[in-house]
Amino acid sequence: MDMTTVCYIERDGKYLMIHRNKRPDDGNAGKWLGVGGHFEPGESPDECVLREVREETGLTLTEYAFRGVVTFVSGDWCEYMFVYTASAFEGELTDACDEGDIRWVDKASLPTLPLWAGDRVFLQLLEEDCPCFSLKLVYEGDALAAAILNGRALDIRGIVS
Amino acid sequence: MDMTTVCYIERDGKYLMIHRNKRPDDGNAGKWLGVGGHFEPGESPDECVLREVREETGLTLTEYAFRGVVTFVSGDWCEYMFVYTASAFEGELTDACDEGDIRWVDKASLPTLPLWAGDRVFLQLLEEDCPCFSLKLVYEGDALAAAILNGRALDIRGIVS
Repeated sequence: MDMTTVCYIERDGKYLMIHRNKRPDDGNAGKWLGVGGHFEPGESPDECVLREVREETGLTLTEYAFRGVVTFVSGDWCEYMFVYTASAFEGELTDACDEGDIRWVDKASLPTLPLWAGDRVFLQLLEEDCPCFSLKLVYEGDALAAAILNGRALDIRGIVS
Repeated sequence: MDMTTVCYIERDGKYLMIHRNKRPDDGNAGKWLGVGGHFEPGESPDECVLREVREETGLTLTEYAFRGVVTFVSGDWCEYMFVYTASAFEGELTDACDEGDIRWVDKASLPTLPLWAGDRVFLQLLEEDCPCFSLKLVYEGDALAAAILNGRALDIRGIVS
Protein backbone atom coordinates (compact mmCIF):
# COMPACT_ATOMS: atom_id res chain seq x y z
CA MET A 1 0.00 0.00 0.00
CA ASP A 2 1.53 3.28 -1.14
CA MET A 3 0.62 6.74 0.08
CA THR A 4 1.56 9.77 -1.96
CA THR A 5 0.70 13.39 -2.59
CA VAL A 6 0.59 15.32 -5.83
CA CYS A 7 0.34 19.06 -6.26
CA TYR A 8 -0.70 21.09 -9.28
CA ILE A 9 0.79 24.54 -8.72
CA GLU A 10 -1.05 27.08 -10.84
CA ARG A 11 0.09 30.45 -12.21
CA ASP A 12 -1.29 32.47 -15.13
CA GLY A 13 -3.34 29.58 -16.49
CA LYS A 14 -0.39 27.18 -16.32
CA TYR A 15 0.42 24.18 -14.14
CA LEU A 16 3.94 23.41 -12.95
CA MET A 17 4.57 19.86 -14.17
CA ILE A 18 7.35 17.33 -14.40
CA HIS A 19 8.11 15.60 -17.67
CA ARG A 20 9.27 12.24 -16.36
CA ASN A 21 12.16 11.79 -18.75
CA LYS A 22 15.26 11.25 -16.60
CA ARG A 23 14.90 7.62 -15.51
CA PRO A 24 14.31 4.98 -18.20
CA ASP A 25 13.10 2.53 -15.53
CA ASP A 26 10.53 5.03 -14.21
CA GLY A 27 7.02 3.55 -14.29
CA ASN A 28 5.87 7.02 -15.36
CA ALA A 29 8.55 7.41 -18.09
CA GLY A 30 7.44 9.83 -20.79
CA LYS A 31 4.39 11.06 -18.89
CA TRP A 32 3.73 14.58 -17.55
CA LEU A 33 2.73 14.70 -13.86
CA GLY A 34 2.30 17.16 -11.06
CA VAL A 35 4.86 17.53 -8.30
CA GLY A 36 4.77 15.10 -5.38
CA GLY A 37 5.90 11.80 -3.93
CA HIS A 38 5.68 9.34 -1.08
CA PHE A 39 4.87 10.01 2.57
CA GLU A 40 7.58 9.78 5.19
CA PRO A 41 6.61 8.21 8.55
CA GLY A 42 4.25 10.36 10.62
CA GLU A 43 3.75 13.01 7.96
CA SER A 44 0.36 14.53 7.36
CA PRO A 45 -0.63 14.98 3.70
CA ASP A 46 0.18 18.71 4.06
CA GLU A 47 3.63 18.04 5.44
CA CYS A 48 4.33 15.54 2.67
CA VAL A 49 3.25 17.83 -0.15
CA LEU A 50 5.16 20.83 1.25
CA ARG A 51 8.34 18.75 1.58
CA GLU A 52 8.03 17.15 -1.85
CA VAL A 53 7.41 20.47 -3.60
CA ARG A 54 10.40 21.99 -1.81
CA GLU A 55 12.68 19.04 -2.66
CA GLU A 56 11.68 18.79 -6.32
CA THR A 57 11.22 22.46 -7.24
CA GLY A 58 12.92 24.59 -4.57
CA LEU A 59 9.59 26.37 -3.98
CA THR A 60 7.77 26.81 -0.66
CA LEU A 61 4.00 26.75 -0.98
CA THR A 62 2.26 29.60 0.84
CA GLU A 63 -1.31 29.00 -0.41
CA TYR A 64 -2.50 25.50 -1.14
CA ALA A 65 -5.61 23.40 -0.79
CA PHE A 66 -6.37 19.72 -0.33
CA ARG A 67 -8.80 18.84 -3.10
CA GLY A 68 -9.47 15.12 -2.85
CA VAL A 69 -8.05 11.64 -2.79
CA VAL A 70 -7.41 9.15 -5.59
CA THR A 71 -7.33 5.40 -4.96
CA PHE A 72 -5.28 3.69 -7.69
CA VAL A 73 -5.72 -0.06 -8.05
CA SER A 74 -4.02 -2.39 -10.52
CA GLY A 75 -4.00 -6.08 -9.65
CA ASP A 76 -2.64 -6.34 -6.11
CA TRP A 77 -1.11 -2.86 -6.21
CA CYS A 78 -2.91 -0.04 -4.41
CA GLU A 79 -1.93 3.60 -3.93
CA TYR A 80 -3.72 6.41 -2.13
CA MET A 81 -2.80 9.79 -3.59
CA PHE A 82 -3.81 13.05 -1.92
CA VAL A 83 -4.39 15.73 -4.56
CA TYR A 84 -3.50 19.37 -3.90
CA THR A 85 -3.57 22.58 -5.86
CA ALA A 86 -1.51 25.63 -4.96
CA SER A 87 -1.91 29.26 -5.96
CA ALA A 88 1.03 30.96 -4.24
CA PHE A 89 4.63 30.12 -3.36
CA GLU A 90 7.94 31.64 -2.37
CA GLY A 91 11.45 30.94 -3.59
CA GLU A 92 13.16 30.39 -6.90
CA LEU A 93 12.29 27.52 -9.19
CA THR A 94 15.19 25.11 -9.58
CA ASP A 95 15.52 22.55 -12.33
CA ALA A 96 17.48 20.05 -10.29
CA CYS A 97 14.71 17.46 -10.06
CA ASP A 98 16.18 14.02 -10.77
CA GLU A 99 12.84 12.70 -12.05
CA GLY A 100 12.47 14.91 -15.10
CA ASP A 101 12.34 18.40 -16.56
CA ILE A 102 10.10 20.85 -14.76
CA ARG A 103 8.04 23.15 -16.94
CA TRP A 104 5.10 25.56 -16.74
CA VAL A 105 2.46 23.94 -18.95
CA ASP A 106 -0.46 25.88 -20.39
CA LYS A 107 -3.62 24.16 -19.14
CA ALA A 108 -5.09 24.50 -22.65
CA SER A 109 -2.34 22.21 -23.96
CA LEU A 110 -2.99 19.36 -21.49
CA PRO A 111 -5.17 17.40 -23.97
CA THR A 112 -2.22 17.10 -26.35
CA LEU A 113 0.30 15.90 -23.74
CA PRO A 114 1.06 12.29 -22.86
CA LEU A 115 -0.83 11.90 -19.56
CA TRP A 116 -2.21 8.85 -17.79
CA ALA A 117 -5.89 8.52 -18.73
CA GLY A 118 -6.86 8.60 -15.07
CA ASP A 119 -4.97 11.86 -14.58
CA ARG A 120 -7.24 13.43 -17.18
CA VAL A 121 -10.17 12.44 -14.97
CA PHE A 122 -8.96 14.17 -11.81
CA LEU A 123 -7.54 17.16 -13.70
CA GLN A 124 -11.07 17.66 -15.03
CA LEU A 125 -12.41 17.44 -11.43
CA LEU A 126 -9.96 20.19 -10.44
CA GLU A 127 -11.14 22.36 -13.35
CA GLU A 128 -14.77 21.83 -12.32
CA ASP A 129 -13.99 22.66 -8.68
CA CYS A 130 -15.43 19.30 -7.66
CA PRO A 131 -15.57 19.53 -3.86
CA CYS A 132 -13.54 17.08 -1.77
CA PHE A 133 -13.62 14.17 -4.18
CA SER A 134 -12.84 10.51 -3.66
CA LEU A 135 -11.95 8.98 -7.01
CA LYS A 136 -11.06 5.33 -7.56
CA LEU A 137 -9.08 4.56 -10.73
CA VAL A 138 -8.78 0.92 -11.75
CA TYR A 139 -6.02 0.07 -14.21
CA GLU A 140 -5.46 -3.13 -16.16
CA GLY A 141 -1.79 -2.83 -17.08
CA ASP A 142 -1.39 0.66 -18.50
CA ALA A 143 -5.05 0.94 -19.52
CA LEU A 144 -7.69 2.69 -17.43
CA ALA A 145 -10.49 0.17 -16.89
CA ALA A 146 -12.81 2.09 -14.54
CA ALA A 147 -13.19 5.40 -12.75
CA ILE A 148 -15.55 5.67 -9.77
CA LEU A 149 -16.25 9.13 -8.37
CA ASN A 150 -17.71 9.30 -4.86
CA GLY A 151 -19.04 5.77 -5.29
CA ARG A 152 -20.53 6.24 -8.77
CA ALA A 153 -18.95 4.87 -11.97
CA LEU A 154 -18.01 7.47 -14.58
CA ASP A 155 -18.31 7.00 -18.33
CA ILE A 156 -14.66 6.88 -19.41
CA ARG A 157 -15.16 5.96 -23.09
CA GLY A 158 -14.29 9.48 -24.24
CA ILE A 159 -11.14 9.48 -22.11
CA VAL A 160 -9.56 6.15 -22.95
CA SER A 161 -10.35 6.10 -26.69
CA MET B 1 0.47 2.90 9.53
CA ASP B 2 -3.27 2.49 9.91
CA MET B 3 -5.92 3.60 7.45
CA THR B 4 -9.50 3.98 8.59
CA THR B 5 -12.78 5.68 7.79
CA VAL B 6 -15.34 7.17 10.13
CA CYS B 7 -18.86 8.29 9.28
CA TYR B 8 -21.19 10.60 11.13
CA ILE B 9 -24.67 9.70 9.90
CA GLU B 10 -27.05 12.59 10.59
CA ARG B 11 -30.82 12.62 11.05
CA ASP B 12 -33.04 15.21 12.76
CA GLY B 13 -30.11 16.98 14.41
CA LYS B 14 -28.67 13.72 15.74
CA TYR B 15 -25.57 11.69 14.90
CA LEU B 16 -25.54 7.91 14.92
CA MET B 17 -22.72 7.02 17.32
CA ILE B 18 -21.20 4.00 19.02
CA HIS B 19 -20.62 4.01 22.74
CA ARG B 20 -17.49 1.86 22.87
CA ASN B 21 -18.48 -0.17 25.93
CA LYS B 22 -18.31 -3.82 24.91
CA ARG B 23 -14.55 -4.54 24.96
CA PRO B 24 -12.63 -3.68 28.11
CA ASP B 25 -9.34 -3.86 26.16
CA ASP B 26 -10.62 -1.39 23.52
CA GLY B 27 -8.30 1.60 23.21
CA ASN B 28 -11.46 3.70 22.81
CA ALA B 29 -13.24 2.15 25.82
CA GLY B 30 -15.84 4.51 27.27
CA LYS B 31 -15.67 6.97 24.37
CA TRP B 32 -18.42 7.84 21.88
CA LEU B 33 -17.35 7.62 18.22
CA GLY B 34 -18.83 7.62 14.76
CA VAL B 35 -19.20 4.43 12.75
CA GLY B 36 -16.20 3.10 10.83
CA GLY B 37 -13.10 0.97 10.81
CA HIS B 38 -10.04 -0.21 8.93
CA PHE B 39 -9.54 -0.49 5.19
CA GLU B 40 -9.43 -3.88 3.53
CA PRO B 41 -6.88 -4.36 0.70
CA GLY B 42 -7.70 -2.41 -2.45
CA GLU B 43 -10.69 -0.57 -0.98
CA SER B 44 -11.29 3.07 -1.74
CA PRO B 45 -12.34 5.22 1.21
CA ASP B 46 -15.94 5.10 -0.09
CA GLU B 47 -15.93 1.31 -0.30
CA CYS B 48 -14.48 1.06 3.20
CA VAL B 49 -17.02 3.40 4.79
CA LEU B 50 -19.99 1.77 3.04
CA ARG B 51 -18.86 -1.70 4.18
CA GLU B 52 -18.11 -0.62 7.74
CA VAL B 53 -21.47 1.14 8.14
CA ARG B 54 -23.29 -1.90 6.76
CA GLU B 55 -21.40 -4.31 9.03
CA GLU B 56 -21.77 -2.28 12.20
CA THR B 57 -25.29 -0.85 11.78
CA GLY B 58 -27.09 -2.86 9.08
CA LEU B 59 -27.65 0.39 7.14
CA THR B 60 -26.73 1.11 3.52
CA LEU B 61 -25.70 4.70 2.90
CA THR B 62 -27.43 6.31 -0.09
CA GLU B 63 -26.18 9.89 0.35
CA TYR B 64 -22.78 10.54 1.83
CA ALA B 65 -19.86 12.92 1.42
CA PHE B 66 -16.12 12.76 1.98
CA ARG B 67 -15.30 15.73 4.21
CA GLY B 68 -11.60 15.55 5.01
CA VAL B 69 -8.75 13.52 6.40
CA VAL B 70 -7.31 13.33 9.91
CA THR B 71 -3.70 12.32 10.54
CA PHE B 72 -3.37 10.95 14.08
CA VAL B 73 0.15 10.75 15.50
CA SER B 74 1.23 9.50 18.91
CA GLY B 75 4.86 8.48 19.28
CA ASP B 76 5.59 6.05 16.46
CA TRP B 77 1.91 5.33 15.80
CA CYS B 78 0.25 6.98 12.84
CA GLU B 79 -3.29 6.65 11.50
CA TYR B 80 -4.95 8.28 8.51
CA MET B 81 -8.71 8.55 9.00
CA PHE B 82 -11.04 9.59 6.18
CA VAL B 83 -14.02 11.48 7.62
CA TYR B 84 -17.48 11.18 6.08
CA THR B 85 -20.93 12.48 6.83
CA ALA B 86 -24.11 10.88 5.54
CA SER B 87 -27.61 12.27 5.22
CA ALA B 88 -29.59 9.32 3.83
CA PHE B 89 -29.59 5.54 4.15
CA GLU B 90 -31.69 2.44 3.61
CA GLY B 91 -32.31 -0.58 5.81
CA GLU B 92 -33.10 -1.22 9.44
CA LEU B 93 -30.75 -0.24 12.23
CA THR B 94 -29.44 -3.29 14.07
CA ASP B 95 -27.82 -3.21 17.47
CA ALA B 96 -25.54 -6.16 16.88
CA CYS B 97 -22.29 -4.16 16.80
CA ASP B 98 -19.69 -5.99 18.89
CA GLU B 99 -17.85 -2.73 19.67
CA GLY B 100 -20.55 -0.99 21.67
CA ASP B 101 -24.11 0.27 21.89
CA ILE B 102 -25.31 2.26 18.88
CA ARG B 103 -27.43 5.30 19.66
CA TRP B 104 -28.78 8.44 17.99
CA VAL B 105 -27.10 11.28 19.88
CA ASP B 106 -28.43 14.84 19.85
CA LYS B 107 -25.65 17.04 18.48
CA ALA B 108 -26.40 19.58 21.22
CA SER B 109 -25.37 16.99 23.83
CA LEU B 110 -21.95 16.27 22.31
CA PRO B 111 -20.13 18.70 24.66
CA THR B 112 -21.27 16.64 27.67
CA LEU B 113 -20.22 13.24 26.28
CA PRO B 114 -16.86 11.56 26.81
CA LEU B 115 -15.15 12.19 23.45
CA TRP B 116 -11.51 12.30 22.45
CA ALA B 117 -10.40 15.95 22.50
CA GLY B 118 -9.30 15.69 18.88
CA ASP B 119 -12.74 14.43 17.86
CA ARG B 120 -14.21 17.68 19.20
CA VAL B 121 -11.92 19.51 16.76
CA PHE B 122 -13.08 17.72 13.63
CA LEU B 123 -16.72 17.58 14.75
CA GLN B 124 -16.52 21.38 14.92
CA LEU B 125 -15.07 21.44 11.38
CA LEU B 126 -18.06 19.39 10.20
CA GLU B 127 -20.45 21.82 11.89
CA GLU B 128 -18.71 24.77 10.23
CA ASP B 129 -18.80 23.04 6.80
CA CYS B 130 -15.02 23.40 6.59
CA PRO B 131 -14.25 22.38 3.01
CA CYS B 132 -12.03 19.35 2.37
CA PHE B 133 -9.90 19.62 5.48
CA SER B 134 -6.58 18.03 6.37
CA LEU B 135 -6.24 17.97 10.15
CA LYS B 136 -3.24 16.61 12.03
CA LEU B 137 -3.86 15.62 15.65
CA VAL B 138 -0.82 14.95 17.83
CA TYR B 139 -1.41 13.01 21.03
CA GLU B 140 0.91 12.49 23.97
CA GLY B 141 -0.60 9.43 25.59
CA ASP B 142 -4.32 10.17 25.90
CA ALA B 143 -3.80 13.95 25.85
CA LEU B 144 -4.17 16.07 22.73
CA ALA B 145 -0.93 18.03 22.35
CA ALA B 146 -1.46 19.81 19.02
CA ALA B 147 -4.00 20.24 16.24
CA ILE B 148 -2.84 21.53 12.84
CA LEU B 149 -5.53 22.41 10.28
CA ASN B 150 -4.40 22.68 6.66
CA GLY B 151 -0.87 23.37 7.84
CA ARG B 152 -1.74 25.95 10.52
CA ALA B 153 -1.71 25.24 14.26
CA LEU B 154 -5.03 25.69 16.06
CA ASP B 155 -5.43 27.07 19.56
CA ILE B 156 -6.61 24.00 21.49
CA ARG B 157 -6.53 25.46 25.01
CA GLY B 158 -10.33 25.68 25.17
CA ILE B 159 -10.67 22.08 24.00
CA VAL B 160 -8.22 20.23 26.21
CA SER B 161 -8.87 22.13 29.44
